[in-house]
Amino acid sequence: MTDSRTIEPALGRARFLADSARVDSAAIAPLPGSRKVYVEGWRPDVRVPMREIRQSPTTTHGEHEENPPLLVYDTSGPYTDPDANIDIRRGLPDLRRRWIDERDDTEFLDGPTSEYGRRRADDPRLAELRFELKRTPRRARAGCNVTQLHYARQGIVTPEMAFIAIRENQRRQALGSDEVERILGHQHPGQGFGARLPEDITPEFVRREVAEGRAIIPANINHPESEPMIIGRNFLVKINGNLGNSAVTSSIEEEVDKMTWGIRWGADTIMDLSTGRNIHETREWIIRNAPVPIGTVPLYQALEKVDGAAERLSWEIFRDTLIEQAEQGVDYFTIHAGVRLHHVPMTANRTTGIVSRGGSIMAKWCLAHHEESFLYTHFEEICEIMKAYDVSFSLGDGLRPGSIADANDEAQFAELETLGELTRVAWRHDVQVMIEGPGHVPMHLIRENMDRQLECCDEAPFYTLGPLTTDIAPGHDHITSGIGAAMIGWYGCAMLCYVTPKEHLGLPNRDDVKTGIITYKIAAHAADLAKGHPGAQRRDNALSKARFEFRWEDQFNLGLDPDTARAYHDETLPKDSAKVAHFCSMCGPKFCSMKISQEVRDRFGQTSQRVEEERRAGLREQAERFNAEGGQLYQEI
Amino acid sequence: MTDSRTIEPALGRARFLADSARVDSAAIAPLPGSRKVYVEGWRPDVRVPMREIRQSPTTTHGEHEENPPLLVYDTSGPYTDPDANIDIRRGLPDLRRRWIDERDDTEFLDGPTSEYGRRRADDPRLAELRFELKRTPRRARAGCNVTQLHYARQGIVTPEMAFIAIRENQRRQALGSDEVERILGHQHPGQGFGARLPEDITPEFVRREVAEGRAIIPANINHPESEPMIIGRNFLVKINGNLGNSAVTSSIEEEVDKMTWGIRWGADTIMDLSTGRNIHETREWIIRNAPVPIGTVPLYQALEKVDGAAERLSWEIFRDTLIEQAEQGVDYFTIHAGVRLHHVPMTANRTTGIVSRGGSIMAKWCLAHHEESFLYTHFEEICEIMKAYDVSFSLGDGLRPGSIADANDEAQFAELETLGELTRVAWRHDVQVMIEGPGHVPMHLIRENMDRQLECCDEAPFYTLGPLTTDIAPGHDHITSGIGAAMIGWYGCAMLCYVTPKEHLGLPNRDDVKTGIITYKIAAHAADLAKGHPGAQRRDNALSKARFEFRWEDQFNLGLDPDTARAYHDETLPKDSAKVAHFCSMCGPKFCSMKISQEVRDRFGQTSQRVEEERRAGLREQAERFNAEGGQLYQEI
Repeated sequence: MTDSRTIEPALGRARFLADSARVDSAAIAPLPGSRKVYVEGWRPDVRVPMREIRQSPTTTHGEHEENPPLLVYDTSGPYTDPDANIDIRRGLPDLRRRWIDERDDTEFLDGPTSEYGRRRADDPRLAELRFELKRTPRRARAGCNVTQLHYARQGIVTPEMAFIAIRENQRRQALGSDEVERILGHQHPGQGFGARLPEDITPEFVRREVAEGRAIIPANINHPESEPMIIGRNFLVKINGNLGNSAVTSSIEEEVDKMTWGIRWGADTIMDLSTGRNIHETREWIIRNAPVPIGTVPLYQALEKVDGAAERLSWEIFRDTLIEQAEQGVDYFTIHAGVRLHHVPMTANRTTGIVSRGGSIMAKWCLAHHEESFLYTHFEEICEIMKAYDVSFSLGDGLRPGSIADANDEAQFAELETLGELTRVAWRHDVQVMIEGPGHVPMHLIRENMDRQLECCDEAPFYTLGPLTTDIAPGHDHITSGIGAAMIGWYGCAMLCYVTPKEHLGLPNRDDVKTGIITYKIAAHAADLAKGHPGAQRRDNALSKARFEFRWEDQFNLGLDPDTARAYHDETLPKDSAKVAHFCSMCGPKFCSMKISQEVRDRFGQTSQRVEEERRAGLREQAERFNAEGGQLYQEI
Repeated sequence: MTDSRTIEPALGRARFLADSARVDSAAIAPLPGSRKVYVEGWRPDVRVPMREIRQSPTTTHGEHEENPPLLVYDTSGPYTDPDANIDIRRGLPDLRRRWIDERDDTEFLDGPTSEYGRRRADDPRLAELRFELKRTPRRARAGCNVTQLHYARQGIVTPEMAFIAIRENQRRQALGSDEVERILGHQHPGQGFGARLPEDITPEFVRREVAEGRAIIPANINHPESEPMIIGRNFLVKINGNLGNSAVTSSIEEEVDKMTWGIRWGADTIMDLSTGRNIHETREWIIRNAPVPIGTVPLYQALEKVDGAAERLSWEIFRDTLIEQAEQGVDYFTIHAGVRLHHVPMTANRTTGIVSRGGSIMAKWCLAHHEESFLYTHFEEICEIMKAYDVSFSLGDGLRPGSIADANDEAQFAELETLGELTRVAWRHDVQVMIEGPGHVPMHLIRENMDRQLECCDEAPFYTLGPLTTDIAPGHDHITSGIGAAMIGWYGCAMLCYVTPKEHLGLPNRDDVKTGIITYKIAAHAADLAKGHPGAQRRDNALSKARFEFRWEDQFNLGLDPDTARAYHDETLPKDSAKVAHFCSMCGPKFCSMKISQEVRDRFGQTSQRVEEERRAGLREQAERFNAEGGQLYQEI
């Protein structure tokens, strides 16, 4: 279909030209106090990137005590590696290529096999927009199944699984003195609601979690640039950031920038939810430059192809879109196959109807045709496509509640039942599955969502949008949902889809993307702590120790957002001398509790010990008296 | 003590002059779509302010259906009443004066009775700073006890209690059509963990809650300007906002502005935590102009009086400070009487020591003197002072954990035990008590805090700071703590002390104050919803209905922060025409799920009904077949 809009520039912005595309400089600036390190293991070409945060020594008591560097999980890819030569026109190194080659179960095609993919590749007017890809797509050889789930069930530990094991362990080591380790190594035992969180994650553990469907490794054979990661309740809680243009705004360059910006701040996966122009080309630029898995909702592009007329969708158009996107390297597809014809009337009396774009589109199609959803009826054919490229399912929650009133209603759970049924179909094909979830849910109804999903879907990973715990704060829905996300992460949710301050109001800009990501990193980490994820508390301990010792730079650098922390501090105390000050502007030098606290320890340490001895002596004396009087707690009347 | 600093202007800002003091214009602008209403009841001079938010009619289907206005709890005082004549030099009307007069158990003194109060009043150099108060302080007549708790235990329902009953009910009425009420009136049954939440709150219910110590009404007889409110787990969850200068920054004018700004956005009480200059004068301006209860930490001013040398504190200086502040009208005092000598060594091995300013000051005093805390030893004398003015205790959590590692440790709970003991002493004097709480607590340890406090302190109201659920996000601690605050509010916490983005980093500015308050309103409301507080869900329902019907202005106006919601929307779709658009820039016209959802209802309503009939027929058929086959669920093998 010709579409003259595709070559016109996005509203009011400079035209995007492939030749002059540049990476966003803000995204490649080194993070403060940090350097990229690579942890090798299992075999020489398994090199796992982590971020090492340096600390200055402790000198509060005149001594000089080293504080070991902290290693943290790092989603930012080569962008924060000063040794990497970033050129987004070439894309990232294809680090998984050899692993895929070795498996010898794929072949390179002559070119895109989708009709739409071929048409776009041949259109000369797109040349100046197009990413110049120098290879053709891969696909499984005939009779082969190339999913990580398939390998796992054969008992095979892939390099991806070994990479993940190293990555999830975060190289926790006691590197400091005993006293330092006493503080850094402290961890409250958690409450994991049945999660299995081993002290040390092995490649075999990863394999088993995948084999049993409790975790997925989204890693399309056509996305060899991705650094492997895992989504599952027995691993670190993950977060997803969304980007994507709409008909109203945004450009290819902005979307690539959002991706590099988002992973800098911690997005574990990125979904490209574009609904505007040049969706295909935009996606190519993103995937070629993404070190994290990329998800999409193929239905959006299918709808674009029928000019927004949902009734004109068809299995054929959808099928072609799946292949087009799989051959580009999309790692997971959101597919709303749970919105069945007979579910739609269940939403008739809802306060906010159907809030999922995909869900509303499919609902319209079903009713317009008075037929069962083609996504449902053709589900096994979808599986055949997915397994040829290793695209994972994200089974969409098209009927999720979009308001507190609609939470946990009949429509929502009817769809969940169907998603459970479809999970089992997908697993028959060894296609990886995760299940999407709500939405808007008041706090006391969140646990039920988690428990039902675990049961319905046989522990397939859960991937929720929040949930928002109240509707009354548009403009602040990253917070209303951050509360619900932290809680459902604690209860067992494997990945949390972020929400930005712009939710319900408009398309997010870069600041919104960062705010959403920081909020969801908070939620995920709070969940890890509550679950008792081994080693999760190290970072909290390191930061608090730095805070208590007035190592301001360390405090900033150890946090999720060093730039903001530093800027806020400097708003009222900008001079460098303030960075060694034993107070800040909140309380000033006389009232700083940490300063006084340190003094108490320094000046009155001996008195304190004496008081403690007196107390214990008093307790011992009480005990002796008690025993001397016969040791009875209660007296006879 | 002479202090030449007190007459110098604050750093770099225009000098504050009483004569030209003006209210902050941003704080008195009307809130959009709103008007102040007064609900009368019980007697003519009980007039409870509420905010009425207008809505436009629903016209999505060509019909014209009225949407009734929504009444919401309103903390903003006369400032948002265009009929009120605001002059901060005169202060607010003393609305409670007659009620206090009628009780005939107080007398006006000749002037301040504290030594410090008299000295400040006589100092000519303070004239241009000073609020010109035209009355002298009140105090209880000899032999009288003037606390709301005392009246409640006599079986007396005061006008304050009646006011509160009206206020807490929020005038919930079904004002629209049945269909509209079906949506607005929906409420999920809650999980209140033993909270008692009657459908209709009566003055007698208020009296009983106060009499039994489960709630407090902070209402100093010297703060007649305050609009009565209640803090207790069986009422709406409340929030507190902090203000106050420090030695490093801020001025009287800024602090008054923060107060009027804070209550505009929803702060139920305000604490003045000033530690800088002119604490006494700053406080007078605040209280005279505050329609909400004001809390302080008298120890801060006492420390100022000894130039920051904690060892030089004494009971006498502290006692004088209590009287000085009580006679100004402070409604509640944070008093760290739970930090006992033998508790201090328990903090020796903590990661962040003692993070409470008051706690660290008292710890230092105890060890410096090797003596029991004078706050503890003189506690009954403190009660004698409190009951003469009706100042409530906020028993301070001086040993709260300031890091995840220190959560729920021995020091924290030892102090809690002492606070329980002191609660019972205070109650013997009929002095009202609430208990302060943490701090930094991972999610899975929050419930224990609530349960222990209920038990230790005989259900006295709990008032926590957060808690922060992780340490790793300085710059975003309103969010790390908003999560914990929502949860502990759900579990039974009565009031949540806000945390701003500047926590740990510096003194908050106006934007930070607003962000902190909105975050905590979210947490409190999420808690109300989860508890099943009657009528709490009305606002969520009204907003979601407006959202679904594309009544954009209504959606903004019904939210906690209309300005931000509108601004975010307008960032990408600024034209007025966009306010009736059935989409926003997030998805654009083709992809808006709500638009499609509405279409589905409009165009396919009949098909939808037919599908539902088919489904039910199918189910009936299944049931008939089942019964025809003998009605057995399992077959014999």
